[in-house]
Amino acid sequence: MDDLLARLRSGLPSEALLTDPDVMASYANDMASFCAAGAPAAVVLPRTVEHVQHVMRTATALRVPVVPQGARTGLSGAANASDGCIVLSLTKMDRILEINPVDRIAVVEPGVVNATLSRAVGELGLYYPPDPSSWEMCTIGGNIGTASGGLCCVKYGVTAEYVLGLDVVLADGRLLTTGRRTAKGVAGYDLTRLFVGSEGSLGIVVKAVLALRPKPPRSLVVAAEFGSAADACDAVCRIMERGHTPSLLELMDRTTVRAVNAMANMGLPDTTEALLLAAFDTPDPAPDLAAVGDLCAAAGATEVVPAEDPAESELLLKARRLALPALETVRSATMIDDVCVPRSRLGAMLDGTAAIADKHGLTIGVCAHAGDGNTHPVVCFDPADPDESRRARTSFDEIMALGLELGGTITGEHGVGVLKKEWLSRELGPVGLELQRGIKRTFDPLGLLNPGKLF
Amino acid sequence: MDDLLARLRSGLPSEALLTDPDVMASYANDMASFCAAGAPAAVVLPRTVEHVQHVMRTATALRVPVVPQGARTGLSGAANASDGCIVLSLTKMDRILEINPVDRIAVVEPGVVNATLSRAVGELGLYYPPDPSSWEMCTIGGNIGTASGGLCCVKYGVTAEYVLGLDVVLADGRLLTTGRRTAKGVAGYDLTRLFVGSEGSLGIVVKAVLALRPKPPRSLVVAAEFGSAADACDAVCRIMERGHTPSLLELMDRTTVRAVNAMANMGLPDTTEALLLAAFDTPDPAPDLAAVGDLCAAAGATEVVPAEDPAESELLLKARRLALPALETVRSATMIDDVCVPRSRLGAMLDGTAAIADKHGLTIGVCAHAGDGNTHPVVCFDPADPDESRRARTSFDEIMALGLELGGTITGEHGVGVLKKEWLSRELGPVGLELQRGIKRTFDPLGLLNPGKLF
Repeated sequence: MDDLLARLRSGLPSEALLTDPDVMASYANDMASFCAAGAPAAVVLPRTVEHVQHVMRTATALRVPVVPQGARTGLSGAANASDGCIVLSLTKMDRILEINPVDRIAVVEPGVVNATLSRAVGELGLYYPPDPSSWEMCTIGGNIGTASGGLCCVKYGVTAEYVLGLDVVLADGRLLTTGRRTAKGVAGYDLTRLFVGSEGSLGIVVKAVLALRPKPPRSLVVAAEFGSAADACDAVCRIMERGHTPSLLELMDRTTVRAVNAMANMGLPDTTEALLLAAFDTPDPAPDLAAVGDLCAAAGATEVVPAEDPAESELLLKARRLALPALETVRSATMIDDVCVPRSRLGAMLDGTAAIADKHGLTIGVCAHAGDGNTHPVVCFDPADPDESRRARTSFDEIMALGLELGGTITGEHGVGVLKKEWLSRELGPVGLELQRGIKRTFDPLGLLNPGKLF
Repeated sequence: MDDLLARLRSGLPSEALLTDPDVMASYANDMASFCAAGAPAAVVLPRTVEHVQHVMRTATALRVPVVPQGARTGLSGAANASDGCIVLSLTKMDRILEINPVDRIAVVEPGVVNATLSRAVGELGLYYPPDPSSWEMCTIGGNIGTASGGLCCVKYGVTAEYVLGLDVVLADGRLLTTGRRTAKGVAGYDLTRLFVGSEGSLGIVVKAVLALRPKPPRSLVVAAEFGSAADACDAVCRIMERGHTPSLLELMDRTTVRAVNAMANMGLPDTTEALLLAAFDTPDPAPDLAAVGDLCAAAGATEVVPAEDPAESELLLKARRLALPALETVRSATMIDDVCVPRSRLGAMLDGTAAIADKHGLTIGVCAHAGDGNTHPVVCFDPADPDESRRARTSFDEIMALGLELGGTITGEHGVGVLKKEWLSRELGPVGLELQRGIKRTFDPLGLLNPGKLF
């Protein structure tokens, strides 16, 4: 241990190395429930690529595991420390190195906060779409590690689609450059994509080339109330089947709507069984908004309310962004699931989730990126009640089983971490798992990078 | 050899196994120049996944290399046979298994021809964007193997972005399922993406889940003539910088325009130094077309001609699609390069290519997916003239060196195959190459899948 700290110190400025136990404890966890975390031996906050290389060389020499971290807003325990590890927090490498409007790229360090980048490119008429709920806090490096999604994915896709190239410090400290600055490129296997969603298990991202888009017009939202979640899901299918491309298509169930009202008194329809929000950000969204309103009505909407202007739209979007915080107030804790099914099975997913909640006598609020079939069932429970905690964990697992049964995946955008390790192997099967482990060994033969995560 | 054929026969219907030397010789090559090909020991045309598994088990048992093939329209020799190999042609596994308009996916076998799929989904109001020039012949399996691009990439991206999940027969005959049917999913490393562009070196794709989009309106095209290639490239930068999203943005140089006119008498402006085509497929393309016309004029266009209607637009697009065949008539052979640079460096790329042509006394026509910075310099030469052939090969290499110098890649969409092996290692560098080889070993420890390709 003394040797570790001495070696780390030899290549780092003093302010980059934290060893106070109380301070280190504050780096132990991300925001996941039910995920064990250990006590780090050191926390390092590198400022440069060389600092990161020094840490990895030291870790390799002494066989010490390294847990990379961004803002620790993750929901699967992927950033949780393990006993005796080096926590490598990339939050101080937070420079935007370049924004190029002709090439439509940004080059950034991993610690840049998503919202900071979004605003910086926005000032130049550009748009970085991935917008996880934690966008005001989470970092681009964390977004890359967990392959984050968000509200806009139904039109604009996920983080993976915006990462063109990476600089990565490997487990042994060598620097790897992957990908490109160009719009296209197929030179060799796509290592860039392999790092996206790898949860820090293959290398430490120290620089990213990101694709940007032109900034779209402000979106207009239409809201529709339904007498049942099934009707709302039917509307989602009709909207997508008819070829609409909403920039957002979100569903909140009754529990979620009431929680948001209770928290923020936003005047959402308290009597609704399901609320659907659709947004369009085209130059002329009126025809799409009207058509979507008609499709909702045909699917049984009890009321269709188009926002009058961007301000009213913004208010509805804000309500949606409050869904998770609001559900967190229902009981003293939550487990947020992240099951994605083919959107044609969304109704079955919501019905099945309601049945699981009933069976276990729990409140499970669902908000969903409905256009993507990506549901976030939020299991509300009291961790001080062992039986309720057990039922919460069981229902969480049953929701994943249901997702797989419906042809879906255990994680649409939150990742695996430690929370869903057992389920990853169920989804991938033995052949897939063996190959994933083979890739891990290729990049990290000593198993030092974020061990115990994923599989 | 007898053992090989006997073993293959034991698990295949007789019509699936070809052994006639003349017939086999017709399977030796794809469409690349300057790429050696060997004589296969057998050609197999499997109809089922089990056939493919039988071939791979046999190959593994006898340590025989396997070269997978689609329609052999590739331009890098990736599908070329090696001596004594089994050629595995997937062209008979050509069923469209499912098209689902709600989930916006198609499930296909690898031998489905791109145009066949495009038309089938089009009838349901859907759109499969990737459109390589060979789309009337090339297969989806080949498109996946080479990570094909096309004319629409500037708006709709490349093949990789449309492959959601795969069934793959591994080198040892086991079946692997990767990815998903859902819009999103981040369960484990992205093996799906790893197979896209892997040129058959990691496994045999036997089924693919593809993402579809709503069919856009027919596009309208504006054409602009320029007095220099530099002005045309300047126009490209202005168009992209101003936030336009053309569905196509193509450039043809003087040599290309003249070759197209000579071949098809299409009435393109014979005096132009560069012709730019921009298309928009939005519901109301008029404002974009007008703005792009103005930007072209500001960049020095000598004439701007908006197409009057879809028919006239179609004629201009047809001219662009004839560019490569037309350039092939300039001399008796061509080498088609595929260098992609950041679009801000497109002008430098075209200037540099012209200088290379001058230096070597060769005709090099350039057509480019200009919006992506993806140039196709076509080196025209007479293979019967050894000195001209040598100069052709040298200039081809110098074009790649120039691309790398400008921050680009040696291949935007045609792949590496045998043609660009040496250049792949220059682009990737030793660390990247080592990791790529490690991945290859993880999937194919005996090195049986398409050996000698990529690296």
